Amino acid sequence: MPSQPSATPPFPADATLADAGEFGLIGALTRIFEQGEHVLVGPGDDAAVLRIRSGHVVVSTDLMVEGRHFRRDWASAEDVGHRAAAQNLSDVNAMGGRAHSLTVGLAAPADLPVQWALDFARGFAEECALVGASVVGGDLTRADEVVIAVTVMGSCAQSPVLRSGAEPGDVVALCGRQGWAAGGLAVLGRGFRSPRVLVEAYRRPEPPYDAGQAAAQAGATAMIDVSDGLLSDAGHLAEESGVTLDLHRAALEVPEPLHAVGSALGADPMRFVLGGGDDHALLATFPPDRVPDGWTVVGEVREGEGVTVDGAAYDGPTGWVHF
Amino acid sequence: MPSQPSATPPFPADATLADAGEFGLIGALTRIFEQGEHVLVGPGDDAAVLRIRSGHVVVSTDLMVEGRHFRRDWASAEDVGHRAAAQNLSDVNAMGGRAHSLTVGLAAPADLPVQWALDFARGFAEECALVGASVVGGDLTRADEVVIAVTVMGSCAQSPVLRSGAEPGDVVALCGRQGWAAGGLAVLGRGFRSPRVLVEAYRRPEPPYDAGQAAAQAGATAMIDVSDGLLSDAGHLAEESGVTLDLHRAALEVPEPLHAVGSALGADPMRFVLGGGDDHALLATFPPDRVPDGWTVVGEVREGEGVTVDGAAYDGPTGWVHF
Repeated sequence: MPSQPSATPPFPADATLADAGEFGLIGALTRIFEQGEHVLVGPGDDAAVLRIRSGHVVVSTDLMVEGRHFRRDWASAEDVGHRAAAQNLSDVNAMGGRAHSLTVGLAAPADLPVQWALDFARGFAEECALVGASVVGGDLTRADEVVIAVTVMGSCAQSPVLRSGAEPGDVVALCGRQGWAAGGLAVLGRGFRSPRVLVEAYRRPEPPYDAGQAAAQAGATAMIDVSDGLLSDAGHLAEESGVTLDLHRAALEVPEPLHAVGSALGADPMRFVLGGGDDHALLATFPPDRVPDGWTVVGEVREGEGVTVDGAAYDGPTGWVHF
Repeated sequence: MPSQPSATPPFPADATLADAGEFGLIGALTRIFEQGEHVLVGPGDDAAVLRIRSGHVVVSTDLMVEGRHFRRDWASAEDVGHRAAAQNLSDVNAMGGRAHSLTVGLAAPADLPVQWALDFARGFAEECALVGASVVGGDLTRADEVVIAVTVMGSCAQSPVLRSGAEPGDVVALCGRQGWAAGGLAVLGRGFRSPRVLVEAYRRPEPPYDAGQAAAQAGATAMIDVSDGLLSDAGHLAEESGVTLDLHRAALEVPEPLHAVGSALGADPMRFVLGGGDDHALLATFPPDRVPDGWTVVGEVREGEGVTVDGAAYDGPTGWVHF
């Protein structure tokens, strides 16, 4: 049929999406995505077909827009792939579940290098492999700017942990790096590339993928992944649970490289910890005697509403505002 | 928390997304989406939670970009919502399944009217209600252009019907309107608004949602939804099945309003039927004695490859090329 462009991989090094054509590129992308045993039909039909056991299926979706959620000069295509996957896998983690399947849509200008799309897919697949999840479907279309749309599905071995279950008397605990990515983003924004450990934390977050399910099994009463900002996401949890979350500055670790960034930028490094989100740490509440290993108690749940820091309102930035 | 914008619905008539803020608008959108009984947790947590019975789950994802897949001056926001949902529900239909859950991501400029987003959501929800599916999650973010990302999940009561099962000796059959939307799009492209029935067919396709499952139960050997174009999608089916599909012009109905458009535009109206896709008709292959009611036999499956029309290659446009 004449509507199929004829370019086939391997593509020339300088090929663009327009050169490769939709079907040629989809074929190349599809070969990057290995399918797990639960995938009866992977990409290429009208829909993927999965074998799912009865139980709780969790589903979440996220968009990433170039210039807003990532910059091609600040992170490699592989990094962006890792981040796009991590952001979604983390949402399943925050329910106490384990991701098994993802779809990814890529809208991009016709002059986007094919190599960027392939590297993005490789990074995305590598991140998914960390939890054994498969990329089962996708879509590719032209747009003026790069937009990445990911949907993740997962399953829970036990009841999912919602945002709404925190009770006065619970403790608030954090698992995973917090503030590192925000520090990395701040230095990138000033045109620097160091401290390298923070820049790398921004480019490739390391969500604590094993911690969500373990927290659920330990008896977490509420959980959320820190994606908008620690105080902002603590606020979501407080609101859904109808309680106050009081965080304790002294319990929040400010990693050494953040002190250096704070000095260089003339900012209180605690702001990165309280306002940062891109690390995809988990924030959860537990009965005081149920906090699992690997979690740090950083506050307590009280009657009331909203979030306080050491018992008082916080007047710095609490997170990311989308509009 | 200061990061939550304060605007709450009802929004002023001229409010933009920037005025409403992310969380205010998400709240208003969420109230539009009614949840089915299988939805244990709808939008608002890190992920939705569904109760799924064991079996085949089908998953598909699609992107729609303003200016490419729709124009705000050619269709109302509600129409775009209907089309975005229909396009995805149809993918499940083409597997012989029934959709139960969708997620929808909306990337949009800050100056997009809130009313557009609300009307879009209403149209989307109305279309989903036709098959009893729920919108269980979403995402909202700023972008330079409007991009709509939909993922649909469904279940199959029997084995899904793939593109790959057509066999020589089968007949090719079509269910649903074909070419109408392409005719509507053609007149809109020339600045006309009539024939109204075709313009409406483009704005709000009417996929044969009950036909997919019925075809599967009747013994369809292969199936695809016509979204790229009849010949183009027939080509996908032929390729995946390793056969030739021969379509018969005499069996393909050219509806009366398409004749008028053909005359006005100086085009063979059969081109809209052979190249059009936006109606989301179903194309399937069956053993000759298994074609269900409501389907029209439009061709036959032969040994070979590719698609022919009355036994010969077709040199007109076969469908939509994305890059």
